[in-house]
Amino acid sequence: MRQDNPSGEDALIARYFRPIATDPGAFDLGDDAAILNAAGGDIVVTTDAIVEGVHFLSDDPPDTIARKALRVNLSDLAAKGATPAGFVLTLALRSADDAWLQPFARGLGEDASHFGCPLLGGDTVSTPGPRMISITAFGRVPQGNMVHRNGAKPGDRVVVTGTIGDAALGLDILTRGAVATVLADDAAAKEMLVGRYRVPQPRNALAQAVSDHASAAMDVSDGLAGEILCAIPEDRLEAFAQAAKSAGVPVSSIGTVMAGPSVPRFLDAQGREIALQRLSYSHF
Amino acid sequence: MRQDNPSGEDALIARYFRPIATDPGAFDLGDDAAILNAAGGDIVVTTDAIVEGVHFLSDDPPDTIARKALRVNLSDLAAKGATPAGFVLTLALRSADDAWLQPFARGLGEDASHFGCPLLGGDTVSTPGPRMISITAFGRVPQGNMVHRNGAKPGDRVVVTGTIGDAALGLDILTRGAVATVLADDAAAKEMLVGRYRVPQPRNALAQAVSDHASAAMDVSDGLAGEILCAIPEDRLEAFAQAAKSAGVPVSSIGTVMAGPSVPRFLDAQGREIALQRLSYSHF
Repeated sequence: MRQDNPSGEDALIARYFRPIATDPGAFDLGDDAAILNAAGGDIVVTTDAIVEGVHFLSDDPPDTIARKALRVNLSDLAAKGATPAGFVLTLALRSADDAWLQPFARGLGEDASHFGCPLLGGDTVSTPGPRMISITAFGRVPQGNMVHRNGAKPGDRVVVTGTIGDAALGLDILTRGAVATVLADDAAAKEMLVGRYRVPQPRNALAQAVSDHASAAMDVSDGLAGEILCAIPEDRLEAFAQAAKSAGVPVSSIGTVMAGPSVPRFLDAQGREIALQRLSYSHF
Repeated sequence: MRQDNPSGEDALIARYFRPIATDPGAFDLGDDAAILNAAGGDIVVTTDAIVEGVHFLSDDPPDTIARKALRVNLSDLAAKGATPAGFVLTLALRSADDAWLQPFARGLGEDASHFGCPLLGGDTVSTPGPRMISITAFGRVPQGNMVHRNGAKPGDRVVVTGTIGDAALGLDILTRGAVATVLADDAAAKEMLVGRYRVPQPRNALAQAVSDHASAAMDVSDGLAGEILCAIPEDRLEAFAQAAKSAGVPVSSIGTVMAGPSVPRFLDAQGREIALQRLSYSHF
């Protein structure tokens, strides 16, 4: 980010983002680039973007949009067992609207501080289209210690954090779907689910336990819920569950990794196979 | 980037981007995150986005759009004296159009290979609006050696690479402005200028010389031309010019840093002050 002359773009950066870019590597957003000091370990890099009308609604509160944009990336870092180190922000807006930017920057700054993931730099651009926020986030792991997707072994327990699907129910409520009708009289439940859609709960408190115990892990939310799916060897399960409890993160064992040539099968409560129309959200 | 089920999005990634993600830290784009091995130095981080209708034209050849998206970031790394280490890509598209994606991925892969800056990961999202490409690029410098914007001292010479303004003339030609009329009969000049607009020339060959000699440096193109502006102490000027010549990069001395309280003044050939309407492009 740059503020070398007093343009609208530079004023925007100076007013909203310089105050929250407190890391020394950000150079007060006054340079062409930022510095991540590596200190001999590995830097884990992840990037996720959210688009107005696709990942968030036009009238979602701006602070929740900022939090979602950062948290979907923090969730990936957590699933890799990485400690947050910082992020860069690309913000595409139709106009520099103070009433939107002020709460956006406040939400972003609060989350950056809360999760120990400072703003290092970025780019603000104009667009004639929907708002878009793209974040690239960085985390640290000891060299060679990133938890991969593909390390699970037969016999490992498959464990998931939290309750999957809350965010989808929240979106359904906001778009007046069937869930809104079912929960018509339960304002607290509706509020909770809408909150899960707008502000996912990344499980960064669990990153150390994932790093210590998981043979494989991934972020299954793809940006919608902030849940971790991981494989835990049977003899580590107790220690993992204990660490999760200490971190205040609910976890559930939902299956066991099995050897064999077949693709995973999904069974209902009676053991009958369920044919899924699609396995997860696809943009195209 | 992810391809954990055979959706359109995953097929897109597997088809177009996995083949060009050859760095081991990219894990074949099959994980939630990539690894940058730091090796004790500093990682320079920069991010720049380009938007259809703002930074490129809808009918620009897709391979030139990919090259521009990467090169505007490479230009920032060059200005900081950093060696390219890799990048992550966010690609927002209305649809997965093979006729557009195929040349886009080819151009991106060729530039990634040419500049030694491998694709490490990314995110593909759908948008109802204009195409947008956001890249975060990484470079390496020995610890503490990034060249900053603010290190110039009185007496340093101000040096610029290449010929500033070519890209703006190229855009003018593409949008049938005054330059198109002036150069009506000079097809070669028009082609050269259009090429500068579409495919900037980042000065990465000069990065080592900038690192060795410059007291301050910045990318003055903000994505449009890929030129470096730097301050070189008088006693380093000869060595810098020699290094630039060896790198095949034309450089010109355009002034001298002076101490004093006044803002920079711009004089015409007769020494009269020029009042500039605006100092550079601002998005807002």
